[in-house]
Amino acid sequence: MVKVTVWNENRHEKKNPLVGEIYPDGIHGAIAGFLTEAGFEAGTATLDEPEHGLTDDVLNNTDVLIWWGHLAHGEVKDEVVQKVQQRVLDGMGLIVLHSGHFSKIFKTLMGTSCDLKWREADEKERLWVLAPSHPIAEGIGEYIELEKEEMYGEHFDIPAPDELIFTSWFEGGEVFRSGCTFIRGNGKVFYFRPGHETYPTYHNKAIQRVIVNAVNWAQPVDRNRPVYGNAKPLEKIAAKVN
Amino acid sequence: MVKVTVWNENRHEKKNPLVGEIYPDGIHGAIAGFLTEAGFEAGTATLDEPEHGLTDDVLNNTDVLIWWGHLAHGEVKDEVVQKVQQRVLDGMGLIVLHSGHFSKIFKTLMGTSCDLKWREADEKERLWVLAPSHPIAEGIGEYIELEKEEMYGEHFDIPAPDELIFTSWFEGGEVFRSGCTFIRGNGKVFYFRPGHETYPTYHNKAIQRVIVNAVNWAQPVDRNRPVYGNAKPLEKIAAKVN
Amino acid sequence: MVKVTVWNENRHEKKNPLVGEIYPDGIHGAIAGFLTEAGFEAGTATLDEPEHGLTDDVLNNTDVLIWWGHLAHGEVKDEVVQKVQQRVLDGMGLIVLHSGHFSKIFKTLMGTSCDLKWREADEKERLWVLAPSHPIAEGIGEYIELEKEEMYGEHFDIPAPDELIFTSWFEGGEVFRSGCTFIRGNGKVFYFRPGHETYPTYHNKAIQRVIVNAVNWAQPVDRNRPVYGNAKPLEKIAAKVN
Amino acid sequence: MVKVTVWNENRHEKKNPLVGEIYPDGIHGAIAGFLTEAGFEAGTATLDEPEHGLTDDVLNNTDVLIWWGHLAHGEVKDEVVQKVQQRVLDGMGLIVLHSGHFSKIFKTLMGTSCDLKWREADEKERLWVLAPSHPIAEGIGEYIELEKEEMYGEHFDIPAPDELIFTSWFEGGEVFRSGCTFIRGNGKVFYFRPGHETYPTYHNKAIQRVIVNAVNWAQPVDRNRPVYGNAKPLEKIAAKVN
Repeated sequence: MVKVTVWNENRHEKKNPLVGEIYPDGIHGAIAGFLTEAGFEAGTATLDEPEHGLTDDVLNNTDVLIWWGHLAHGEVKDEVVQKVQQRVLDGMGLIVLHSGHFSKIFKTLMGTSCDLKWREADEKERLWVLAPSHPIAEGIGEYIELEKEEMYGEHFDIPAPDELIFTSWFEGGEVFRSGCTFIRGNGKVFYFRPGHETYPTYHNKAIQRVIVNAVNWAQPVDRNRPVYGNAKPLEKIAAKVN
Repeated sequence: MVKVTVWNENRHEKKNPLVGEIYPDGIHGAIAGFLTEAGFEAGTATLDEPEHGLTDDVLNNTDVLIWWGHLAHGEVKDEVVQKVQQRVLDGMGLIVLHSGHFSKIFKTLMGTSCDLKWREADEKERLWVLAPSHPIAEGIGEYIELEKEEMYGEHFDIPAPDELIFTSWFEGGEVFRSGCTFIRGNGKVFYFRPGHETYPTYHNKAIQRVIVNAVNWAQPVDRNRPVYGNAKPLEKIAAKVN
Repeated sequence: MVKVTVWNENRHEKKNPLVGEIYPDGIHGAIAGFLTEAGFEAGTATLDEPEHGLTDDVLNNTDVLIWWGHLAHGEVKDEVVQKVQQRVLDGMGLIVLHSGHFSKIFKTLMGTSCDLKWREADEKERLWVLAPSHPIAEGIGEYIELEKEEMYGEHFDIPAPDELIFTSWFEGGEVFRSGCTFIRGNGKVFYFRPGHETYPTYHNKAIQRVIVNAVNWAQPVDRNRPVYGNAKPLEKIAAKVN
Repeated sequence: MVKVTVWNENRHEKKNPLVGEIYPDGIHGAIAGFLTEAGFEAGTATLDEPEHGLTDDVLNNTDVLIWWGHLAHGEVKDEVVQKVQQRVLDGMGLIVLHSGHFSKIFKTLMGTSCDLKWREADEKERLWVLAPSHPIAEGIGEYIELEKEEMYGEHFDIPAPDELIFTSWFEGGEVFRSGCTFIRGNGKVFYFRPGHETYPTYHNKAIQRVIVNAVNWAQPVDRNRPVYGNAKPLEKIAAKVN
């Protein structure tokens, strides 16, 4: 059974009654809820827990980590970020949601600023499927429509994704690469744009389906890390004289 | 005129008489030498200079930075690494050579361990051209043969390169992605494998040609960084009622 | 001096007075005009000329071929398509414009249906730059806005492009990968979406700049095709007994 | 249950007693055999059957098609090739083996010559895993070693693969991109190099594992082709006056 840990900053939920209303169990609770229904073993972890809830024990027992953060990226300890990076390189899947684009872990794995344009204006988003054969888009029609979302617009300062699954159209005139995969070490990373805290986006069935698909896609392959370092020759090397 | 800065750790040259013999002006001097002949304005910078020779003034006047390091990656100051990263994102080209795969700047830009297999056994390397139409391979035949080099072998723990220009065959039985491009922000990055300090690799005309080509390829496009942050709508957004 | 041949079907110009008004010298004439001003040696060729104007002599003296077709893709002779494909594999650049997505040569090089959604509704297109460091986007701001164009929408049935330079936003709600590069053999291919015949798109300075940039990018590298076929070993192969 | 059809030219088996000895049930029989053991529903089809064994009924009931051909690529009827291409675009997986690089179907899907270097010299091949997290490499160590194989060498004239899973080292001095994925329409394509008819390559457990993995990877996603053609606007388009 695939073990998922849903990490959430969990600050908006405490500060903003509207967010608490939409997500009474927090964004992490909502996501863990539909993942459990989908048959995964889903736990949660949040910023204000010790070690942000990401102890060695939790991380070592996580196949796929989901990350939602926004207000407090700077409060995430560097040593936790390093551990998460190492686990990704070792094979753990990572799904970064929405404002997690600016999280330390995503920026560390990308090597770029991960900056973008944004606007909060209750505008329509339509996520078009660009890679219809990709397992992350399975069961999704030609697009997902969200009546109201925050806008994220290009340029999105990321490395060219290995696969571009979704691109969003926004009412206000922008486009955005909203579903992107990246391989880092043995680990699979999926960035998925939607999910501003003041909209019920994670209650949307199509959005849930994408995240479920992404968990299936991101689970680790059964293999150790390759062997690195000094290596004996596999073939005879001719003796040479300078 | 394209301005190139060749950065070198410059430690092997001081410690190992053999290296000093092969590169009497240092690896940096050798590279700056053939770049000057090729018509570039080429300066050098080394680890033991103040700010490692990479002052704001130097960096801001560098179109393409070349990086060779090996023994002392850990001595490069994090603040210099951050400045170099920012310059790359702003558009400066970066060419990382050989053991620079483990430099802080390369690892920062890649987000992975950048680890690999290696062996010092005076063995033959043959770099095959995989992308014959790429400007970095212009003027190069089907392959470059180096009679003696250090071996680097797969798995090379990098993100899948945007373009794979060369792959090396080694006498001892390994292969290696030895010429790789990566776009990061507005900047172009080229990793090029050959160049162990105890071999005269940078005196090889074909190797020089690749580096000259790479400088031409990596020079900045004439544009500012995109505009990031809060953005006004370009189109009218329909008023909505909850 | 880079030699460009602008191929045009040249049928709309004869049938539709509006098109003739916008492009009195034909679409090919308009494009050849601004390419000549930009310093290229630009000729034209059209469907109704013998061999569609693409004789061996013309093709062998073309560095970059530009292709505009729409009504009469089926009238282009297969043998001419095969010659153009061979020239691309040999290194000639190819820029396919707008409705050329359905041309035989583009479909042959892609291996897919190259199908898409479309609509003629005088709607706004905004082409966002996704690859700011790419030479094809040099001198272009964050986007190009076209007040009225035909819509092309995803899914665009092409292989994932090697580089995605532009993505379009359309007023009617769709997005489209509108600037895509593909390497085929020694040749560089650029697909660029805008240019419906009833709009003055090729008189737009930004559109012209992209096409000029693309010609520079697509010109052949100076090299022969690699050597294929039976190959002698470069290294000694151990004698083996079954 | 995933339905696989293994297509084989089946000519070497009849002409060359050595091949018949290694593969008494033909290459197709050997492959279908281990796929059946792996739990797939595996049938076969060969060149000399009516419609090459690829009737509409067979194709429509095939989830993943495997292709081995060499001597008689030219005898495969164009209409069958077109049907197979259409099925791939519709979602059927395709695994092209060894000398199938020159098959009509592979060349049609690639758009290039698919040419390469080759040599029959009983030499060693070592396939290195470049993408350790890819499901096609699951259960495979760092490399697969084949004591004797035909050599295929770069340059391999294909589009840059979407994912590069294996690269081969050859005793005689060449390298080759020996495991490559390509998406075409809704279909997934995997090219896998090994399998010269005079060696028992398809009896090798690691090679079998790769093919089993590839069948799992290539099976169709549950979705229709996207809708193409004329499309109504999803948003209101402002009325415009010329």
